[in-house]
Amino acid sequence: MFVMDYEKSKGWYNPRIEPYHPFMIDPACVVFHYAQEIFEGLKAYRIADNTIQLFRPECNARRMMESAGRLCMPEIGVEDFIQAVKTLVSVEKEWVPHTFGASLYLRPFIFARDNGLGVHASKKYTFCIICSPSGSYYKEGINPIRIYVEDEYIRSAPGLTGFAKCGGNYAASIKASEMANDLGYAQVLWLDGIEKKYVEEVGSMNIMFKIDGKIYTAACDGTVLPGVTRRSSIELLHDWGYEVIEGKLSIDDVFKAGREGKLEEVFGTGTAAVISPVKELFYKGETVIVGDGGIGDVTKKLYDTMTGIEWGKLEDTKGWMMKV
Amino acid sequence: MFVMDYEKSKGWYNPRIEPYHPFMIDPACVVFHYAQEIFEGLKAYRIADNTIQLFRPECNARRMMESAGRLCMPEIGVEDFIQAVKTLVSVEKEWVPHTFGASLYLRPFIFARDNGLGVHASKKYTFCIICSPSGSYYKEGINPIRIYVEDEYIRSAPGLTGFAKCGGNYAASIKASEMANDLGYAQVLWLDGIEKKYVEEVGSMNIMFKIDGKIYTAACDGTVLPGVTRRSSIELLHDWGYEVIEGKLSIDDVFKAGREGKLEEVFGTGTAAVISPVKELFYKGETVIVGDGGIGDVTKKLYDTMTGIEWGKLEDTKGWMMKV
Repeated sequence: MFVMDYEKSKGWYNPRIEPYHPFMIDPACVVFHYAQEIFEGLKAYRIADNTIQLFRPECNARRMMESAGRLCMPEIGVEDFIQAVKTLVSVEKEWVPHTFGASLYLRPFIFARDNGLGVHASKKYTFCIICSPSGSYYKEGINPIRIYVEDEYIRSAPGLTGFAKCGGNYAASIKASEMANDLGYAQVLWLDGIEKKYVEEVGSMNIMFKIDGKIYTAACDGTVLPGVTRRSSIELLHDWGYEVIEGKLSIDDVFKAGREGKLEEVFGTGTAAVISPVKELFYKGETVIVGDGGIGDVTKKLYDTMTGIEWGKLEDTKGWMMKV
Repeated sequence: MFVMDYEKSKGWYNPRIEPYHPFMIDPACVVFHYAQEIFEGLKAYRIADNTIQLFRPECNARRMMESAGRLCMPEIGVEDFIQAVKTLVSVEKEWVPHTFGASLYLRPFIFARDNGLGVHASKKYTFCIICSPSGSYYKEGINPIRIYVEDEYIRSAPGLTGFAKCGGNYAASIKASEMANDLGYAQVLWLDGIEKKYVEEVGSMNIMFKIDGKIYTAACDGTVLPGVTRRSSIELLHDWGYEVIEGKLSIDDVFKAGREGKLEEVFGTGTAAVISPVKELFYKGETVIVGDGGIGDVTKKLYDTMTGIEWGKLEDTKGWMMKV
């Protein structure tokens, strides 16, 4: 694993690769009590000529700096972040799978190291990157999922930490996810925190709706995580001539479109599953089926294109891939 | 320190007192990434006859169970919680200060121990209690504080974790607190997350306003931490014949009362400072002085009564104190 330490008086220091090992954490450490912690997630892919590449790691680096700013944590330069990721992947290159669809998952994270129970920004931090081979998300081909639209709990609200990849967002989300899982739904769709009316994002992905030929997704204006796969999908959709509306889409309009047969496709975008088709939405007792319940054309084309670029089967015309 | 472990198949097991030591935490542990962690705070007081007592520990026990429910963490029985606290205080009784105003601060906390990056409720947890002598909060007598009314960031919103004492609430609060501190304010006053209009609570305390003879404080209906000192203060205020309104009070009404000379007293309630007088509020460029800027009569009476009961100088007519 990659490890680097921070002290307010020194800045970041002592970057190093170490054998995987537990951290010794004092019981009074801020990370146990006040959750001053942020993370990222990205993957390394092995392509046909056996080189290894990363997908837009600069986007993860920049997002981690945004998260750090919100949580009053020290920033790491984009170049230093990328260098750390590349160094770790180089050392662990034998663990990058050879199978299409499989990859080496990388988890950079920063956590507070001050010991003491006063609530304030810690003066010490550790930046760590761990990694693990990750199998193909869809072992038996892409399987459309069922989604529960959450109408009681929320994920964020303006003025909170929705745009940051911080632990507290995830801790708060567990309850609704577990309840949805118990009812047979793979994920929760979160509505906005103010009116509980507008679609925002799914448990571990951003989400897009194709209605009557146009594509809708929530804007990233503070409450929604700005996904790298989300942004990349929007760029591809623009290239293909689709109108993509980043803004407010009410869940009522989604269900109205469903009833009228105009809810053509719904899909999640995220690092883990890349593109995840949705076949069914449940909201306040009503179920709506997306399209014919199968995988829509745009969903399929996005999946094939994104994975094609990531695993080097398609030309990287966007300059997204970075060789390690 | 007190330590007890949990596994889904076993329940809570192996309660023990151990010498203070760091925990060995795997880099993939849930607590580093998804902040599944809750805590409590209470104090042990040494009274004149040298016995040691706790202030309403059953309230902390119950609140911790509420927090656990929201964060999908296992509950600990109220009796077990109290027994753990008492056992630790008995072992560490020499550390309970002899000075009026000083006490032994106790910090019970539970954190997730599963190792793995899937977002779900952990199956393993550790419950720990650490403690530390805590000096008198007001070394030079009670000093009224200045408060910054936060109009951009929020602390919570309905459907989130505001009522739970979980790490994520505190991580999200640091930014506004640091900004207020930089401007010379001791604490932030949070407004509601929906309209940013109604007063909710202060950084580390609940807050009460005496306006034209009546006392107002936010209701505990999901977004506000249900403070033990808050509840106890309300009971005393009722006993003394005050009308206490638990409900919505807009910041505009607070400032209007201030301009009209009707904002008689403002005070925070919390375990650390017990009762904390506020002399000044700042909101969107305007400053209002509370009363004459000194310590109001009700604030003083509450402080004297609460600390009198806690340190055994007044009779505990409410049955709040529990001997260790």
